[in-house]
Amino acid sequence: MPKQIDHEKRREQIAQATWRVISERGMEGATVRNIAAEAGLSLGALRHYFSTQDELLAYSMKLVKERVTARIREILSLDLPPREKFIRTILELVPMNRENMVEMEVWFAFTAYFRHKPGRFDMQDDGVYLGLQKLMDYAEQNGLLPASIDKELETEKLYALVDGLALHAYMQPQRLDGPRLERVLIHHLSGLMAAEKQSDAPDRRS
Amino acid sequence: MPKQIDHEKRREQIAQATWRVISERGMEGATVRNIAAEAGLSLGALRHYFSTQDELLAYSMKLVKERVTARIREILSLDLPPREKFIRTILELVPMNRENMVEMEVWFAFTAYFRHKPGRFDMQDDGVYLGLQKLMDYAEQNGLLPASIDKELETEKLYALVDGLALHAYMQPQRLDGPRLERVLIHHLSGLMAAEKQSDAPDRRS
Repeated sequence: MPKQIDHEKRREQIAQATWRVISERGMEGATVRNIAAEAGLSLGALRHYFSTQDELLAYSMKLVKERVTARIREILSLDLPPREKFIRTILELVPMNRENMVEMEVWFAFTAYFRHKPGRFDMQDDGVYLGLQKLMDYAEQNGLLPASIDKELETEKLYALVDGLALHAYMQPQRLDGPRLERVLIHHLSGLMAAEKQSDAPDRRS
Repeated sequence: MPKQIDHEKRREQIAQATWRVISERGMEGATVRNIAAEAGLSLGALRHYFSTQDELLAYSMKLVKERVTARIREILSLDLPPREKFIRTILELVPMNRENMVEMEVWFAFTAYFRHKPGRFDMQDDGVYLGLQKLMDYAEQNGLLPASIDKELETEKLYALVDGLALHAYMQPQRLDGPRLERVLIHHLSGLMAAEKQSDAPDRRS
């Protein structure tokens, strides 16, 4: 049993080395050779944990998704008002700090890379859309959303807004930094919840 | 002079062959060899027009931008109400049809590729943010926006929404097709202009 745990832990360390390589050199640099060097392993040792490059890349991407999911689960378990939980979980989906930025870089590089390898890794299911649907349900059930809302369209908009902001923060980190990201998202979410607490949304038109 | 024109025309044909290769095989497939084959040229003939792969790729990307800009300029020159011009130009920025989708694929592949080649091609300046700032100014000058609006934040939101929708249409073309893209964007723009013509925005909360 301890050996099994070591095996999984080592796979995670290799995945983290993969993230660093992708973040620094892009997907073109994410060769098995470079990743082995970054992880401090021989090529043979690396192959013991991952038999192909695609297997390693798919695992590294899966780990990004798991980390984000774990952070969101933690926020939802906190003793906070629903409104704050709703806002804080959505802020987790954009790169507010260096750690999130590396995840975003990896996600973005993967998306472009796997787009032309159908079947190998399903990028359509990155879980964000499904997660946002659940969060919108949560907001609705907790009375945060006005009854008149078109929830389906608003979910699609929020999904596009989150990924668009993440993409821009990745491409233009100087212009769109953490505080600005937060301002834009809170502005949007305040608007979305406007009918609930008008006083919380001074920037709301109407 | 005719020779100069032929030269430029041939460069455009090569750029279009580059788009097709990227759209079908991704950036990894965009080798000089594959592009020459797609364009029906020998490697030597291709090198006559572009001496390096990066020069070819940068030119191909520049041509995408020019085509989008030309289409937007055309819409703005039409005899239409400002409101319709505003909506139609923004719809040009998301992939509503096969042609736009190829441009989006190319843009997206380039973004990921050039992200780790600083200085070679400035992805921060894809022109969309600047273009949207001008369009928001146009909307304001034509009385389409409520006075209370935070124009800067709304421009940032619109920019994220446009690129997020484009990204999702690229990754999930079955789910987010042209009509749905249009619905989401018009829903958002109607909300943005809500104070101007309340009757045009039946889906608007307030």
